Amino acid sequence: MIPKEYPRVVIEAVEPKVDGGRFPIKRVVGEKITVSADIYKEGHFKLAAVLKIRQVGDDEWQESAMTQGDNDRWFGEFIVTAIGRWEYTIEAYAEIYLSWVDEITKKSVPGADLRSELLEGLVILKKSAAVAQGEDLSRMLGIIAAIETALAAGEQRGAIDLGIGKVMHSMMASYPDRSEGHQMTPPLTIMVNRPIARFAAWYEFFPRSQSNLPYRHGTLQDSIRRLHDIKAMGFDVVYLPPIHPIGHSFRKGKNNSLVAVPGDVGSPWAIGNKHGGHMALEPQLGTWDDWNQFVATCRELGIEIALDYVMNCSPDHPYVAEHPDWFFHRPDGSIKYAENPPKKYQDVYPLNFGTSDRAGLWQEMLEIFLFWIGKGVTTFRVDNPHTKPVPFWEWVIGEVHRQHPQVIFLAEAFTKPKMMRLLAKVGFAQSYTYFTWRDHKHDLTEYVSELTSGEMKEYFTGNFFANTPDILPPILQFGGRPAFIMRAVLAATLSSVYGIYSGYELCENEAIPGKEEYLDSEKYEIKMRDWKAPGNIVDIITRINQIRQECPALQTYNNVLFLNADNPNILAYAKMTEDRSDIVICVVNLDPFHAHHSILHVPLGTFGIPEDEQYQAHDLLSGERYRWHGPTAYVELAPTTKMAHIIKVRRW
Amino acid sequence: MIPKEYPRVVIEAVEPKVDGGRFPIKRVVGEKITVSADIYKEGHFKLAAVLKIRQVGDDEWQESAMTQGDNDRWFGEFIVTAIGRWEYTIEAYAEIYLSWVDEITKKSVPGADLRSELLEGLVILKKSAAVAQGEDLSRMLGIIAAIETALAAGEQRGAIDLGIGKVMHSMMASYPDRSEGHQMTPPLTIMVNRPIARFAAWYEFFPRSQSNLPYRHGTLQDSIRRLHDIKAMGFDVVYLPPIHPIGHSFRKGKNNSLVAVPGDVGSPWAIGNKHGGHMALEPQLGTWDDWNQFVATCRELGIEIALDYVMNCSPDHPYVAEHPDWFFHRPDGSIKYAENPPKKYQDVYPLNFGTSDRAGLWQEMLEIFLFWIGKGVTTFRVDNPHTKPVPFWEWVIGEVHRQHPQVIFLAEAFTKPKMMRLLAKVGFAQSYTYFTWRDHKHDLTEYVSELTSGEMKEYFTGNFFANTPDILPPILQFGGRPAFIMRAVLAATLSSVYGIYSGYELCENEAIPGKEEYLDSEKYEIKMRDWKAPGNIVDIITRINQIRQECPALQTYNNVLFLNADNPNILAYAKMTEDRSDIVICVVNLDPFHAHHSILHVPLGTFGIPEDEQYQAHDLLSGERYRWHGPTAYVELAPTTKMAHIIKVRRW
Repeated sequence: MIPKEYPRVVIEAVEPKVDGGRFPIKRVVGEKITVSADIYKEGHFKLAAVLKIRQVGDDEWQESAMTQGDNDRWFGEFIVTAIGRWEYTIEAYAEIYLSWVDEITKKSVPGADLRSELLEGLVILKKSAAVAQGEDLSRMLGIIAAIETALAAGEQRGAIDLGIGKVMHSMMASYPDRSEGHQMTPPLTIMVNRPIARFAAWYEFFPRSQSNLPYRHGTLQDSIRRLHDIKAMGFDVVYLPPIHPIGHSFRKGKNNSLVAVPGDVGSPWAIGNKHGGHMALEPQLGTWDDWNQFVATCRELGIEIALDYVMNCSPDHPYVAEHPDWFFHRPDGSIKYAENPPKKYQDVYPLNFGTSDRAGLWQEMLEIFLFWIGKGVTTFRVDNPHTKPVPFWEWVIGEVHRQHPQVIFLAEAFTKPKMMRLLAKVGFAQSYTYFTWRDHKHDLTEYVSELTSGEMKEYFTGNFFANTPDILPPILQFGGRPAFIMRAVLAATLSSVYGIYSGYELCENEAIPGKEEYLDSEKYEIKMRDWKAPGNIVDIITRINQIRQECPALQTYNNVLFLNADNPNILAYAKMTEDRSDIVICVVNLDPFHAHHSILHVPLGTFGIPEDEQYQAHDLLSGERYRWHGPTAYVELAPTTKMAHIIKVRRW
Repeated sequence: MIPKEYPRVVIEAVEPKVDGGRFPIKRVVGEKITVSADIYKEGHFKLAAVLKIRQVGDDEWQESAMTQGDNDRWFGEFIVTAIGRWEYTIEAYAEIYLSWVDEITKKSVPGADLRSELLEGLVILKKSAAVAQGEDLSRMLGIIAAIETALAAGEQRGAIDLGIGKVMHSMMASYPDRSEGHQMTPPLTIMVNRPIARFAAWYEFFPRSQSNLPYRHGTLQDSIRRLHDIKAMGFDVVYLPPIHPIGHSFRKGKNNSLVAVPGDVGSPWAIGNKHGGHMALEPQLGTWDDWNQFVATCRELGIEIALDYVMNCSPDHPYVAEHPDWFFHRPDGSIKYAENPPKKYQDVYPLNFGTSDRAGLWQEMLEIFLFWIGKGVTTFRVDNPHTKPVPFWEWVIGEVHRQHPQVIFLAEAFTKPKMMRLLAKVGFAQSYTYFTWRDHKHDLTEYVSELTSGEMKEYFTGNFFANTPDILPPILQFGGRPAFIMRAVLAATLSSVYGIYSGYELCENEAIPGKEEYLDSEKYEIKMRDWKAPGNIVDIITRINQIRQECPALQTYNNVLFLNADNPNILAYAKMTEDRSDIVICVVNLDPFHAHHSILHVPLGTFGIPEDEQYQAHDLLSGERYRWHGPTAYVELAPTTKMAHIIKVRRW
């Protein structure tokens, strides 16, 4: 079968894209996107190409011209100005007028008879004039008439000059003939979110621990008071573990013991009891009024709420009675509890995504998101998404975004690298990472480079948590206060989005021996804390968050540039804005036990600083200023004095 | 909309493929294809995957098990056993039985009650038994009954052993439950051709120059005599420039002069006169009987015929009268001749692929191929394909292959790299390259590496011509006989498919001064040659072709490994078979004017030769044998003695 139509121009290898266009790239509002593609055609035509963008659902494309680089590579750019899904494509076409200009110019040698070429040109000019309007139309018709007059008079030179002249050139640019062209289909897509999807400082805390009286269950009202401290430290997202009613059957006791005693509050991740399930509040935390006040205070303070989204049900969850078919049943009729043999989690029933009532289950899971969005939640930290079918996430995030494109999803998936990537591809704006366990120079360099380069940089944003209720890494257990400072600087500057779990600022580091679990973990009991305890690093955390606000270079995710530092215990890296108006160098002592010094190699060329010029190195953490000169500098960091520099580089 | 069905297993990043699967990979019959993919699933299931292949049009897939490597990467392989289009895909699934085996094994701690797990296992076993047949069925039912008996007797350990035992294991492997699985769609495709598509020595000659009498137009009968010499030199493809009637209007004279004089034979690329067009023979060459004898002799000698396919028409071509609408018309009514301003080719009318009679034109272009295939032609060297729409080539090659999958297409496209690649992607088995102009070590290394690595190696085979009627490169013009030897060795060993244009063996190198064109080019006149002229390199060419036949390592395209040689004038590279049974090292002096010596670095590890072992370096060109030892060797090459080694490496 001879094809009825075919692309008249080749458009291929379009970038950026993810998995050949199967998944959207991700951006935040206001970001510039540079698009490039290979564009070419058989024969010797001059080509033109336009980049076309629109929000999904719009009818009209916005166009901008692309420019040609080397080796048939074309470039264009645009800025995304609103949240939601966008799409972009490229239309390229033979520029018939410019090809004619080129041809007739080359043929214009003395004595050449170009009558036939001029007649061809007139056909081209008239075709564009036929779609021109208003003043343009009359000007084009005027020139066309003049060409015809000159041609009739045998004045070919004059006719050519009119045809290829400036005026006609600019007219023709407005009415290009794109008939010998092609528009790439389907378009590529972009998921655009708010800047806070890329630049944010997260603070995780348990509302039930916010009471200031020992043994009194904390409430949302207590949490409202705590919000002011959190804001003062500079955090802009508060992340709450589940705040729903907690099951009683097989409730876990303190330190994850199998038997709870009266007064044990249980794990918030075992959701549901007679008071309700995923759309209810744990009564001891307060009422919906309290919740609404909590939301209002967050709004006032400019804090966003990230809620834990956990697809576990306790045996007491209303779903168990209402929808027994949503769970796994054993041949003996009982419902399967969660297991990771030989470990058993009898307080939790997993949901069966292969249930015959798949429509009912999936819809309900969506309703939970919509419910909490209605209650003022803008971000969800999703628990263990890698144990559910990925197509579910693609569907449910798509549905949420269709109504609420501003919602941000964070994937808590500590699993195989490819699964972590796929979850990001299908819509999770942020992902937990293995940063928490990377504390050697080589490992940090390699891992952060992997996360922020290649195709991953188009869709994956690592939220660097320094600790979590589940993870107290050895470096913090043994490195003490210097390690807490060091890891906070790394998390807050290696990634533009980072977080800590409360207690970090107090350098809490007592673990169950031989494990990465907190001793007396807050997951199973209420904790009281003295936020002004000696040795706390509240001031340092606060200063780090201020510096992040002051330095646009620290607000971008993909701009880490590792620098050479001769000492293997000293990690150095720079971040800078595209226009180099803000350049920050971070120098971190990775060894919490010893002082280290190093030669630091400063990439002056990259920074745009002449070799023979002095420049200022202003340590934003300590306030000290150094005068540096040339491509090397000396740095010295000690656990007893300072663990890190965050240096703003300024030309004099 | 909740999706009705969704992939239960993730299958992604499948390799090999070209442009995400848009184009087929290419292979020759008998080649092994190793397929790999990322395969994983949510949760903790054991997985299994099968590679499925078939010839396009077959109903049934042939399956083979894939094996799991690191980081969720799976591997499988198969051999393509017939020419034509093949397709392959992957089916992966949760191995429900093995997952159960894993679970119950982990839970088998003393005192555990696994009754419920055993009941679950029975469900799994019975499901597979339901599709088992014959003896398998009765064995499975027997074991199932025994498990039930043991379970009823409270003998859980015995029941488990039966369920996870060897016999049941092998039964279950034959009847896997793939319900929790996914098959990748659409499949990926392969274009499989004959080995000669990858390994061949081409010889180009003008039949009209094969007369042994001065001034007598050569004939097909003359060419038949010549075939024996060509075969004796070791060539297996003869490539004929167009053999059709040549136009008279604006016929070019000798040395491309604008005016022909009586007796001038014209350019064979200006096709068509009153005797016919693309499906006719130039009468002076002979009759169809002569042609059939030529074909028969080729068959006897094991030589394939490659015909030039040229979409030019002379003004005298029958198409001009029969299908004036297939050409470009100027406003004055005349037909446009070919131009590359300011150059004019008035003896040639290009075809207009945008004609309103596109169906007629495209179909006729297909008919030309089919006509000559019917006349015994198996290969087409296509002239300037990059000046026609690429979709035409994809269509016409697809149509030809549907009926004649054995046909080989060579693209003569000296154009932008991306266009050259695209032509290969849409179906050209071989491509001309820029090899002819690459004569420095760095350039050759870089260019050949580019051609034989990355995605290109899946679809692009460079046919390395040392010269053509259009190209007499400077290295040959000035380097004389040593350069001809050196370039022949390079062409014949860097690529598995290479060619020369006749006269090369006589070291013909007289050019139009300052150009790469032959003086008195055979394109415009008949040439007489003395094939035994002094200084000829027939023996060397013959020996090179023999060596290629003797060495399987030289018969593969993608296996060039450049070696370190300290002297920048010495190019060294190895080729070896996958099993290392044949290892060849080529060492070439790139300087035709001076002797050079070098230390050669031999990658003993890659070759599988122990550091402390002696090995034999047998120069297949000279017959000399050297005893080498360790990872370095000394080489010396001189224009006066030898320009190259082709060394077979043998362990003692």
